Amino acid sequence: MSLTIDLVADLGEGFGSWTMGDDAALLDVLSSANIACGFHAGDPRIMDDTVAGCARRGVNIGAHPSFPDLVGFGRRAIEASAEEVRTDVIYQLGALQAFAAAHGQRVAHLAPHGRLGNLVAVREDYAAAVVDAVRQVDDQLIILAQDGQLAEQSRSAGLAVGIVGIADRAYQNDGTLVPRSQPGAVISAADEIARRAVRMVRDGVVESVDGADIPVRADTILLHGDSAEAVVTSRTVRAELEGAGVEIRPLDATQLRS
Amino acid sequence: MSLTIDLVADLGEGFGSWTMGDDAALLDVLSSANIACGFHAGDPRIMDDTVAGCARRGVNIGAHPSFPDLVGFGRRAIEASAEEVRTDVIYQLGALQAFAAAHGQRVAHLAPHGRLGNLVAVREDYAAAVVDAVRQVDDQLIILAQDGQLAEQSRSAGLAVGIVGIADRAYQNDGTLVPRSQPGAVISAADEIARRAVRMVRDGVVESVDGADIPVRADTILLHGDSAEAVVTSRTVRAELEGAGVEIRPLDATQLRS
Amino acid sequence: MSLTIDLVADLGEGFGSWTMGDDAALLDVLSSANIACGFHAGDPRIMDDTVAGCARRGVNIGAHPSFPDLVGFGRRAIEASAEEVRTDVIYQLGALQAFAAAHGQRVAHLAPHGRLGNLVAVREDYAAAVVDAVRQVDDQLIILAQDGQLAEQSRSAGLAVGIVGIADRAYQNDGTLVPRSQPGAVISAADEIARRAVRMVRDGVVESVDGADIPVRADTILLHGDSAEAVVTSRTVRAELEGAGVEIRPLDATQLRS
Amino acid sequence: MSLTIDLVADLGEGFGSWTMGDDAALLDVLSSANIACGFHAGDPRIMDDTVAGCARRGVNIGAHPSFPDLVGFGRRAIEASAEEVRTDVIYQLGALQAFAAAHGQRVAHLAPHGRLGNLVAVREDYAAAVVDAVRQVDDQLIILAQDGQLAEQSRSAGLAVGIVGIADRAYQNDGTLVPRSQPGAVISAADEIARRAVRMVRDGVVESVDGADIPVRADTILLHGDSAEAVVTSRTVRAELEGAGVEIRPLDATQLRS
Repeated sequence: MSLTIDLVADLGEGFGSWTMGDDAALLDVLSSANIACGFHAGDPRIMDDTVAGCARRGVNIGAHPSFPDLVGFGRRAIEASAEEVRTDVIYQLGALQAFAAAHGQRVAHLAPHGRLGNLVAVREDYAAAVVDAVRQVDDQLIILAQDGQLAEQSRSAGLAVGIVGIADRAYQNDGTLVPRSQPGAVISAADEIARRAVRMVRDGVVESVDGADIPVRADTILLHGDSAEAVVTSRTVRAELEGAGVEIRPLDATQLRS
Repeated sequence: MSLTIDLVADLGEGFGSWTMGDDAALLDVLSSANIACGFHAGDPRIMDDTVAGCARRGVNIGAHPSFPDLVGFGRRAIEASAEEVRTDVIYQLGALQAFAAAHGQRVAHLAPHGRLGNLVAVREDYAAAVVDAVRQVDDQLIILAQDGQLAEQSRSAGLAVGIVGIADRAYQNDGTLVPRSQPGAVISAADEIARRAVRMVRDGVVESVDGADIPVRADTILLHGDSAEAVVTSRTVRAELEGAGVEIRPLDATQLRS
Repeated sequence: MSLTIDLVADLGEGFGSWTMGDDAALLDVLSSANIACGFHAGDPRIMDDTVAGCARRGVNIGAHPSFPDLVGFGRRAIEASAEEVRTDVIYQLGALQAFAAAHGQRVAHLAPHGRLGNLVAVREDYAAAVVDAVRQVDDQLIILAQDGQLAEQSRSAGLAVGIVGIADRAYQNDGTLVPRSQPGAVISAADEIARRAVRMVRDGVVESVDGADIPVRADTILLHGDSAEAVVTSRTVRAELEGAGVEIRPLDATQLRS
Repeated sequence: MSLTIDLVADLGEGFGSWTMGDDAALLDVLSSANIACGFHAGDPRIMDDTVAGCARRGVNIGAHPSFPDLVGFGRRAIEASAEEVRTDVIYQLGALQAFAAAHGQRVAHLAPHGRLGNLVAVREDYAAAVVDAVRQVDDQLIILAQDGQLAEQSRSAGLAVGIVGIADRAYQNDGTLVPRSQPGAVISAADEIARRAVRMVRDGVVESVDGADIPVRADTILLHGDSAEAVVTSRTVRAELEGAGVEIRPLDATQLRS
């Protein structure tokens, strides 16, 4: 049986006249996309175009809901109630589903964006809010998350979970990421990122910041697309994975549940 | 065969801490609701609550998309392209569909709000944009409209159309409404509004501003709910219709198409 | 020398078509107004009208800046940097100053709204951000605050500070408010609120939740205007104060600094 | 007496995490800046940074108010009342004035942005609204406009007017611009733009699309800064003007009024 991995990145993160990243180039590299839904980025035209691009390339469509914070790009926590998180997620997910339907597609996964994405890993109430939103709207969606509250509660609720591996971030020995505030937290050399991606997929390990090989699960690898370099890196990662005999393929909810 | 009519009003038109109208009282009177989708009014909590109320009372759920103009309550035209109208409608419709799904319901109809609602009656491109949006997302939706471009294009495209009768507005001899700027445009006496509603449904006519009985089609009658009086009027209209042997019942797409 | 007190309430907290509170009635009672500046409530028309009302009645104009959270009415903390707080305050203050200028007035004070108002009492960085914003734009403004970081830093920076007494909230023995989550936190009987206001002004004390008279400083008393009752209460407070020989008069920066 | 001209461009047109144009490069070329005020672009951080940059370089600060249309970049008309235009302009102008004050500067001019800028040339009511806003807030501001309603009404009201010459657009024989929809409307060669700028300033003429020299008044020349090319062009224009003995200098209200 051949090794497979999903490659995912955040797309559609412009707004109005403003652009971010080279989505067209990334669509050639990815098998899945996290698409902004209008709360931190994305507007109805951009969502439509991004979904159309995914449809043309066979890239899976995912919702990337956020706190409502356009000026802060969803990077700031808002002291929202769990009920506010649940309803904000339903709203954004539904909006994207309609664009998917308009292009004969369906939304395949959901991955909370930015600060909301951080918080659902540690806040029980927010994780439960996202799980409730997804179950209420479409329980066939795959949840993309790192290990934490959202991943755990999603599994308990019977939702398929895809664990996100991050090849351009340093890991600590306990399997968590080195905080961005520390030196060495972010890895920038394309070949090193690609090598780490291959090890994650083929060997199920990543070399920690202390030099130890630690086990890491990655159902999908998150690429970054917000710079020219990032596109080059993404291509290198894909090429190295394919060179190592890994097939790039969207996540499959049935396999994730089994 | 008994006479039936749908009664519809705009609901969920608060925002955040601000309220508008007495939705709870109206839910007892209506068979359908036009629900604000966040662009002129409505936020995810209000949408969720309003959909929940409709689900509990068996009131049909309709999308009430608008130009993006919260501060202007969707009453001001925005010089949008048809493509902007199409994608704005898809976004709002999808958001509401997700709340409907969360409550085990589906969106049954769509009625453009405010200034967009005026313009789709006369602008071919905007009417086409709304028709495209609906066909692309869910071609089983009923379009609510007055006679005009949107009604015509919807029928041509095979969509079910429900013509909206307005019992509290004066009609001209040609079947169009007396503009609000003219005296007598708005009828405020509850018993007169109720009488006009009964004649619309039972006899298919309305007395014009010149005193002539003119033919008028009404598949649904639009009630207004933004004042305490309006609730009383709505109850009167319902009671008079029922007293005249008319059954209040949501629109049925199959019948409208036949 | 006669006793004087300032009476202040939050005004202009509607948005677009939505209203909140009975501003017209309150303008007869107040000597100062905290005016929403568009981030949690208020829009340019409402700001203009509210400033015009203050100008007609001789009510002092104050800026009531907030976190940017219209849907949450500024009641939710946003994880903003101090720099974001500083610049958001400058923006809102400037917008209000222009309306004041358009009516031949000036902004006399600034009082952070809602959650921002809570946080500037305890967060050094946010308090410093507000102090910086005010000094940079107009160092003659009076800062309205309860005891805490903002009051302290404002005084250190040479800004005039008016301490806000809250006659309809229970105080603890240490002079802080009983949290809203506890029973008895909010006092609703108009005559009791008025009595407490008189004692605050005349005797400089308030009866704590434990029955002890504790010293409390109040340069201004905050009234609430968001209900019909609240207007009645406000009138009662004013009448009782005047009956006790207290003159209602806007704050005077020179006196506060001395 | 030496020839002088003002060079102006739109600055601060990013939003949140999104950037637009190379403001830093342009600040070396300009003598004045039209700064976005948050309604079509710009946020409090960007406004503060842009004003700071202007203060450092001695570039005059101007307000660039817009219809409230972030997603449409102010390029779409909104069916606003004149009263809405007046109050929206006051709000935006005031916000920028506060940032100017925070940097020890003042706002020197105002130039309506985008679609509002087009409409104030032809709509009497909108032109009057802008004139009223400026007179009410600061009657020392210079109005930047092309010939039309705003320029005329501003002069009648005693406001200083700076007429904007556009060196990279073709003119018709009647002195109006060739519409963008027509071929040849936009001139892209840097040397030709520079040559036209020099003729505007030195000779008071521009060669029309039909090859005739027509008289044209230009108190300031509008440069475009939203591309890498645009920066090069702007530098070329400045260099050619200086080479022709023209001094680049901000507008002077006193001279414009005389």
